[in-house]
Amino acid sequence: MIKFMILDVDGTITDQNRIISPDAMKNIKNGIEKGLNISLISGNVIPVMFGLKTFLGINGPVFGENGGIMYYNGKIEKFFSKEKPFKFLEYISTISSATAYFTNQWRETSAAFSMDPGDVEKVSTEAKKWNLNIVDSKFTWHIMNQGENKAYAVNIIKNLYGLNWDEILVAGDSDNDNPMFNLPVKKACPANATNTIKSLSDYISPESYGNEIGDIMLKFKILP
Amino acid sequence: MIKFMILDVDGTITDQNRIISPDAMKNIKNGIEKGLNISLISGNVIPVMFGLKTFLGINGPVFGENGGIMYYNGKIEKFFSKEKPFKFLEYISTISSATAYFTNQWRETSAAFSMDPGDVEKVSTEAKKWNLNIVDSKFTWHIMNQGENKAYAVNIIKNLYGLNWDEILVAGDSDNDNPMFNLPVKKACPANATNTIKSLSDYISPESYGNEIGDIMLKFKILP
Repeated sequence: MIKFMILDVDGTITDQNRIISPDAMKNIKNGIEKGLNISLISGNVIPVMFGLKTFLGINGPVFGENGGIMYYNGKIEKFFSKEKPFKFLEYISTISSATAYFTNQWRETSAAFSMDPGDVEKVSTEAKKWNLNIVDSKFTWHIMNQGENKAYAVNIIKNLYGLNWDEILVAGDSDNDNPMFNLPVKKACPANATNTIKSLSDYISPESYGNEIGDIMLKFKILP
Repeated sequence: MIKFMILDVDGTITDQNRIISPDAMKNIKNGIEKGLNISLISGNVIPVMFGLKTFLGINGPVFGENGGIMYYNGKIEKFFSKEKPFKFLEYISTISSATAYFTNQWRETSAAFSMDPGDVEKVSTEAKKWNLNIVDSKFTWHIMNQGENKAYAVNIIKNLYGLNWDEILVAGDSDNDNPMFNLPVKKACPANATNTIKSLSDYISPESYGNEIGDIMLKFKILP
């Protein structure tokens, strides 16, 4: 039985323009009323995730920076440091088109940037030398510490709530969701997910961009 | 003709638990599709407002800290300083039950706190001595610089967009909305508004907590 559902935000509960799906909102509310716990994990910054928790009525912890930082029980907890990612961003800004992203002022454990597609290979190679990962969340690139990813966050939830793997259901659509889709949890995705995410999923919904949430809840018997 | 609609957030597009009304979301989207510009002004911090702009698809600027700070065109603009409000908060924490609010770490122009109801008069008296205002947004108390309020933000929008007063419609429900309800703009409120807001409104909707947005748009001929 699924006790905990962990949702990516962009493309999973939002449309292509990042607007939250009112249908997803209703089903999140319905799920919580049925006793489900829900968390959000996104590449976004923690004050934005704090806002989403408030305004969507999310009952579980919310994670920002792809799992590096959590807001739970009125407190923020950081699991990694931003020092190395920011130093790396400073460096690649001098050797590539990498440009710091606006929300970096609120980042605590990672750095975000944009770059020309032609620079991806070069910057990836440099990141390996620095023992860092770069991850594309479709809306921006993220520089992450080793071990900082959404699977890290899922493990924290598992321990906090004393869950078994098969009591956890994750939903996501893009590359930065891969680590949590490689865990022995239940996995579902919308029709707009990447091929990798689809290949790792127990269930691929025919619905997209937030409209799949209700369908997934039916499939996993969260909603009747 | 209304060209610009300025919305308070808590209690105006959310329910009592601060959860965004899916009905308000749909009507915000409908209004924007009809050519309306929409801004949000709240006591919340600017990264949360930045998140709301993104996730609700708001097309106008968004203001945090009751009007003291704006996110517009990819940039943040501060109109006041946080120095004096934070010094005042430090002081009243020593003479009353005032306790800093969690989101102060992201505040740039004002300070937020909670206090026992019995301390309101004492803290108000001190604020006057310091030439500061304290304002209740129902969810927290705000320490504001003189002149820092939602009317200040409405004036900025008026100038940015070259509007006449009667092309602007404001909607709000509580004390921190009073300054913008004293401007010569059009005013509307939900049924859950304070008596002061109701007495200043051109239209009091029979609907509440976000469900009034569509009704107000009909009343002011924004939606057919």
